Amino acid sequence: MASRKTTNATVSPKGSLETLSQREVQQLRETGSGSVYALFRQCALAILNTGSNSDNAKTILEAYPDFEILIHQLDRGIRLELCNAPADAFVDGEMIASTREMLFSGLRDIVYTQSELENKRVDFNSSQGITDYVFHLLRNARTLRAGVEPNIVVCWGGHSISSEEYKYTKIVGHELGLRGLDICTGCGPGVMKGPMKGATIAHAKQRIIGGRYLGLTEPGIIAAEAPNPIVNELVILPDIEKRLEAFVRVGHGIIIFPGGAGTAEELLYLLGILLHPDNREVPFPLIMTGPKSATPYLEQLHAFIGHTLGAEAQQRCKVIINDPAQVAREMAKGIKEVTQFRRERSDAYHFNWLLKIDESFQRPFEPTHENMAGLNLTREQPVHELAAQLRRAFSGIVAGNVKVQGIRLIEEHGPYQITGDPQIMQPLGRLLQAFVDQHRMKLPGGSAYVPCYRVLS
Amino acid sequence: MASRKTTNATVSPKGSLETLSQREVQQLRETGSGSVYALFRQCALAILNTGSNSDNAKTILEAYPDFEILIHQLDRGIRLELCNAPADAFVDGEMIASTREMLFSGLRDIVYTQSELENKRVDFNSSQGITDYVFHLLRNARTLRAGVEPNIVVCWGGHSISSEEYKYTKIVGHELGLRGLDICTGCGPGVMKGPMKGATIAHAKQRIIGGRYLGLTEPGIIAAEAPNPIVNELVILPDIEKRLEAFVRVGHGIIIFPGGAGTAEELLYLLGILLHPDNREVPFPLIMTGPKSATPYLEQLHAFIGHTLGAEAQQRCKVIINDPAQVAREMAKGIKEVTQFRRERSDAYHFNWLLKIDESFQRPFEPTHENMAGLNLTREQPVHELAAQLRRAFSGIVAGNVKVQGIRLIEEHGPYQITGDPQIMQPLGRLLQAFVDQHRMKLPGGSAYVPCYRVLS
Amino acid sequence: MASRKTTNATVSPKGSLETLSQREVQQLRETGSGSVYALFRQCALAILNTGSNSDNAKTILEAYPDFEILIHQLDRGIRLELCNAPADAFVDGEMIASTREMLFSGLRDIVYTQSELENKRVDFNSSQGITDYVFHLLRNARTLRAGVEPNIVVCWGGHSISSEEYKYTKIVGHELGLRGLDICTGCGPGVMKGPMKGATIAHAKQRIIGGRYLGLTEPGIIAAEAPNPIVNELVILPDIEKRLEAFVRVGHGIIIFPGGAGTAEELLYLLGILLHPDNREVPFPLIMTGPKSATPYLEQLHAFIGHTLGAEAQQRCKVIINDPAQVAREMAKGIKEVTQFRRERSDAYHFNWLLKIDESFQRPFEPTHENMAGLNLTREQPVHELAAQLRRAFSGIVAGNVKVQGIRLIEEHGPYQITGDPQIMQPLGRLLQAFVDQHRMKLPGGSAYVPCYRVLS
Amino acid sequence: MASRKTTNATVSPKGSLETLSQREVQQLRETGSGSVYALFRQCALAILNTGSNSDNAKTILEAYPDFEILIHQLDRGIRLELCNAPADAFVDGEMIASTREMLFSGLRDIVYTQSELENKRVDFNSSQGITDYVFHLLRNARTLRAGVEPNIVVCWGGHSISSEEYKYTKIVGHELGLRGLDICTGCGPGVMKGPMKGATIAHAKQRIIGGRYLGLTEPGIIAAEAPNPIVNELVILPDIEKRLEAFVRVGHGIIIFPGGAGTAEELLYLLGILLHPDNREVPFPLIMTGPKSATPYLEQLHAFIGHTLGAEAQQRCKVIINDPAQVAREMAKGIKEVTQFRRERSDAYHFNWLLKIDESFQRPFEPTHENMAGLNLTREQPVHELAAQLRRAFSGIVAGNVKVQGIRLIEEHGPYQITGDPQIMQPLGRLLQAFVDQHRMKLPGGSAYVPCYRVLS
Repeated sequence: MASRKTTNATVSPKGSLETLSQREVQQLRETGSGSVYALFRQCALAILNTGSNSDNAKTILEAYPDFEILIHQLDRGIRLELCNAPADAFVDGEMIASTREMLFSGLRDIVYTQSELENKRVDFNSSQGITDYVFHLLRNARTLRAGVEPNIVVCWGGHSISSEEYKYTKIVGHELGLRGLDICTGCGPGVMKGPMKGATIAHAKQRIIGGRYLGLTEPGIIAAEAPNPIVNELVILPDIEKRLEAFVRVGHGIIIFPGGAGTAEELLYLLGILLHPDNREVPFPLIMTGPKSATPYLEQLHAFIGHTLGAEAQQRCKVIINDPAQVAREMAKGIKEVTQFRRERSDAYHFNWLLKIDESFQRPFEPTHENMAGLNLTREQPVHELAAQLRRAFSGIVAGNVKVQGIRLIEEHGPYQITGDPQIMQPLGRLLQAFVDQHRMKLPGGSAYVPCYRVLS
Repeated sequence: MASRKTTNATVSPKGSLETLSQREVQQLRETGSGSVYALFRQCALAILNTGSNSDNAKTILEAYPDFEILIHQLDRGIRLELCNAPADAFVDGEMIASTREMLFSGLRDIVYTQSELENKRVDFNSSQGITDYVFHLLRNARTLRAGVEPNIVVCWGGHSISSEEYKYTKIVGHELGLRGLDICTGCGPGVMKGPMKGATIAHAKQRIIGGRYLGLTEPGIIAAEAPNPIVNELVILPDIEKRLEAFVRVGHGIIIFPGGAGTAEELLYLLGILLHPDNREVPFPLIMTGPKSATPYLEQLHAFIGHTLGAEAQQRCKVIINDPAQVAREMAKGIKEVTQFRRERSDAYHFNWLLKIDESFQRPFEPTHENMAGLNLTREQPVHELAAQLRRAFSGIVAGNVKVQGIRLIEEHGPYQITGDPQIMQPLGRLLQAFVDQHRMKLPGGSAYVPCYRVLS
Repeated sequence: MASRKTTNATVSPKGSLETLSQREVQQLRETGSGSVYALFRQCALAILNTGSNSDNAKTILEAYPDFEILIHQLDRGIRLELCNAPADAFVDGEMIASTREMLFSGLRDIVYTQSELENKRVDFNSSQGITDYVFHLLRNARTLRAGVEPNIVVCWGGHSISSEEYKYTKIVGHELGLRGLDICTGCGPGVMKGPMKGATIAHAKQRIIGGRYLGLTEPGIIAAEAPNPIVNELVILPDIEKRLEAFVRVGHGIIIFPGGAGTAEELLYLLGILLHPDNREVPFPLIMTGPKSATPYLEQLHAFIGHTLGAEAQQRCKVIINDPAQVAREMAKGIKEVTQFRRERSDAYHFNWLLKIDESFQRPFEPTHENMAGLNLTREQPVHELAAQLRRAFSGIVAGNVKVQGIRLIEEHGPYQITGDPQIMQPLGRLLQAFVDQHRMKLPGGSAYVPCYRVLS
Repeated sequence: MASRKTTNATVSPKGSLETLSQREVQQLRETGSGSVYALFRQCALAILNTGSNSDNAKTILEAYPDFEILIHQLDRGIRLELCNAPADAFVDGEMIASTREMLFSGLRDIVYTQSELENKRVDFNSSQGITDYVFHLLRNARTLRAGVEPNIVVCWGGHSISSEEYKYTKIVGHELGLRGLDICTGCGPGVMKGPMKGATIAHAKQRIIGGRYLGLTEPGIIAAEAPNPIVNELVILPDIEKRLEAFVRVGHGIIIFPGGAGTAEELLYLLGILLHPDNREVPFPLIMTGPKSATPYLEQLHAFIGHTLGAEAQQRCKVIINDPAQVAREMAKGIKEVTQFRRERSDAYHFNWLLKIDESFQRPFEPTHENMAGLNLTREQPVHELAAQLRRAFSGIVAGNVKVQGIRLIEEHGPYQITGDPQIMQPLGRLLQAFVDQHRMKLPGGSAYVPCYRVLS
């Protein structure tokens, strides 16, 4: 890996934060582990890897051990000096504009987050405080635009999908774009890129200037899922919970494309919120879709929702197979209802204040064997609480599959033991097995999948 | 074909000509064959067929026999009322913006052409008069922009190519777009679309707003090669000769992708001009390129140039196989030389006044059997005149293959007889046979190709 | 006058026509009297004198005998090279942007007019042909904007008025600007400047970007009434009749401020049109206004209208004294009616096609002693025809006062003899005497006024 | 005063802060003295009084006792509901756009200041902390623009000056504007308005879109010096010291026009900074100017600087009498040197980080009799410290003249006693007497001026 081509360059800001105080510059220059600099360096490296989607996080960081990024305050504003940066971020020696833009978006968010924490402005003890924090971060990134009609469609799904599924996401994005809708994703490859690409072409056809391709990420994932270069608004939230909250408060509707355990976790996160009694009347268009070849996946997931969370949960989530235009029409219709609802309730178009997000969804879940074994996967609880428990189960499986710490725990203690009511355990077992059979439980190596869990009933 | 879906709609202008005098409106309302209305109706129908690239001209016109388009002068400007229009031009009942724009571009060009002819402004008897006419038409369409550095790359090639070749044109377009270059094509499908699509994505990545995707067409071809929806500047020139002159005066460099006899005709047109002694010092980057699979095609074409027109002609034309980035770098370099040359000679960046175009290239060639038999395909003439003769040979073959009148002539009199020096006839015969073998001599039906010519030596 | 400061400079286009054909450049370089060049030189000199409002045309032209202006076609478009140009058009060696813009507007209009005439496009024999000509000229100057709500207020009045009257026009312009209205004038000093200045400040307060300050002039007057630098759209019409027609077809309402015989001529021109039976229902807000000190002037003019053309004519013309806000409110209200009317009749917002302008208003009146003596100033004719006759009387008086040829005629043959019905002659005599008493019959010298007319009854 | 015309209205944001969190809205709704609401209400009332420049602060607040302003969070963003607001802020029922914009600028600054204080972010104990605070406030107001060449000219002087002086400031502003320079003032009437008005017209002539008219104010003065409506960027700093620091860090040069004791205070503030040894090499163009009639004022002030602070201080400050073009040329030249200096030192164009401002200039001076008597007005100290002492003397006189608390102190204890070296006391006495003689020591009433000080030597 030492032979990666690198380059040196100096770049000036484009788009975002262009002025820094001397103190902010000073802070960013203090290197050392745990420093703001270390965080920024890591995010910057991921951004510079835009487009090279085969890498996982660790690999990227290790591939450019000499990479350095320095901040200078000059007459016309700040400059970034890059040493030993990935050469692919440049065309004939000049950095691609979108990469340059994202670099400064990253800088902006890291400076802001740092300054908020330093000043103890955030009240992490209250649900309201956390929501406020997400709001301020998004406002500082100029993501919240007053006066604009709701039109942001969040697309969730796998970053590593089949070629047919990828093409399908492009066509859906194209149909959304033809109807003037904007796209928001987790900003990596796969489902995070296809809809943006399709929408770009459609926006060009519709002569829409200023179409938005919003990417929401977090430092822990950005290296593994480097922002694709279509993203024209990048926001780095501090962790996964803030990122998920940002998705549901900023998006006006959500489309679920094929994915794996991570996608299931996201779906359960969203259903857990929508099924909360306080949110019963809040409209939120949610569509599951894929090409014909993804029919088994979509049907199994939908059936699983029905078996575990019931008919109401299923109704919250429309399934449309192989009909991109219909997906777009349904989404446009659903967003009209959102618009109407917000107008009546005087809720902001740009931030979904009315949506109740329980503190249990705002706090991280630590996937120890003890916590996994202790999950309450029974029917004797409100359905939205069961959704929260299921979401944690999937969160643990994701960790056991791909996250450094999770893998180590599995190595030490063997697979997680997941127990509960048979009416829940059986569908869960079947769903997970289907994921395995469809090769959606991906391992970095590509070898045969050895489950990190045991479903007991 | 009677079952095509149609729709009625009223649209207001976007982009172009928004005000008409009462007299202009009146003229456009006078129907009848040979009328301005008939011409506009035909172009409008082609534009509304944007994207449905499988049709030939006649089919389209026949598929919508009830189509009508009316012009109204209202308070806020003109409106077009469409009856029985192709439904595919609309998304949920609203016309796609690019189509709307092109409709009014067409109107603009037809009104202008008509008014020029009516006022006998054009001096068709002099080469200078014809060039002036092309200039005025392009200026009226706001195609000529002063103060902009040269960056328009013309892409020529077939409208019906292999999927691999199509992908390759997209990648080349992407590399051109990353370097800030704009695209100009004949505005149909295939090679006319791919580079524009690639450049659209690249321009988005480079945050280039106002990237130009210029389509030059003419009423005789627009129905067969409906403008693709990426085109954001459409100009309808009155005939094929004006269109070819527009390409070489507006473009700053030309790329030849795989195609058939039509592409060979274009290449010979351009070489005939570049080989004129007056143009010896005029820089004009010209690149032939294609994916690996197109190597035979490219090599045969290049060899043919060498055998017939000699080494100088070959040197005017660089061949690059399967290296999109290199194509873009070479083109960018060549355009820099063009810029330098124009600055030194005080020639306009936006119109190549200095290029000498012989009247023989400005006047149409009528492909009768007599004219074809009378072509002077010998070495006893200046090389640029031989190029002109060869271009006519290909022009005749194209007509005999696909144009209504040419086909009729062949049916009556049998294949064209083409004679000349053996040193020219043999390479010509080989090239044409190669086109046949590679299925580049396409017939509307798709049946086995029966040549419309006989090469005698 | 030989000591005027001059400067040399090269300027590139701003705003208008940026591309010329080689032939157009060639034409503009052919000097000689009667040439296009001579016309352009004269207009250019006037434009470069912007702001120096004390000069009459002859003086300006004589003050810069060595002034020359050359046109070059360069790589980035055309350039103008100025030799011995008035130094006041420059700030620290750089030409003021508005002057630069107007220079190229002038070039644009002169090139266009020339090309129209050369091609015999205009049909000067029909009223419709002349109107079409005015339309095309304005369209070529991009003055006609589709889709914009009516908001152009024409301000007429003297170019040499009292300081109090000038201030008043500024305040009226300010009130118009606060209501989002744009200003159109004859583009010189006095009433032609004040409203634009006031509106500029008001548009700044209302954050209106793109407020329009439209100046319509003609080669015969531009030198005497050099465009003021607020004008941001300058159009040079070929003669006074085309200019007047442009005013009434482009403006949505007209305000008459204090002036002299010229202003009376304009008022009678407009009333002659509005009183035509075909125009009876066409709404056209027309307001006469001035500060308190102008009361006698306004009342006399209004009374004269009543005595000669009757009550209907008076009702077409509202008098508001010393109440700028009320003037603006009335105008805004009137323009709303215009909007409503055009919408109902499908007439263009940007060009008043429905207004009937009799050919007698489109053709110039030659003020010979014979023609003046032959005017039919009697009641035995339709009132709009009487208005046309009266307008000619004032036109002759203006000529006898200030135009070169008129003055010479008076010197040779003595004052004009104007005869007619006593009921018309007496009010006419009184009005003219009032103009004399109020020093509104200005002579270049400033000496006591000797009338160029004798009113007989 | 009860008869002032008022109106009710609801307005939506223009330009600034358009999104607020629910908590921010909540805070702004909590009324009560000392509340954020009370502060915002007071600033809003001043802004709504834009243009009515005869009022002092107290009068305005008392004239609209029923005025209320409520904040609502609606679907498209926040709305302000105004009850019993001054009718002059509206044209035909609609609020003037600039007023609307300033209202939301005020809201933005007050929300920001409040949030900074609440979070104890600001370190008021260090000079660096205070400077950082000013920087953050200006950045939040989007006043700091990276990449823009230095061009901001600060204009200081009286808000109540003679008509001739006011005209002069307009002409100077016009000359500055012709050279592309922007204007920054204290945003009230008089010298704070004239240059902006002149520059607006000049920017229109130069077709400069986006000319900046920056007004810096503070809650204590905004009511007395309501922002004039030309201001298109309003920033409300929390107090006078932050405001002065903002002027010298954001401005690239300063012009002093005629004024009174307040203007002298500002001049001494600036000289005190420029004379600091650390700033010796920092270029900072400083020009005193006025019309011919202001010659005595300018000469006395300049002489006073010479007598007290010496020749070096005089050299820092160029005097130009009655030559607006020369003022603009000098300023443009000086700013070029500033640009050069910042480039060499890598200091930001948008914020003068390199200028050393001693903490004594950042902390408020309380003008008690004791403090005034204790001023060290002797030669036995560095000249920049003497400037600081003199600045305090003038600060006290301003307070004794016009500020509520100062006037009360004078009523209780009689005039301030100011002592010091005779070489300083005599020039000071003469200068103050000249101010009195020239009616520059204005009292709200307009009665004869009774000095609030006694200069002893």
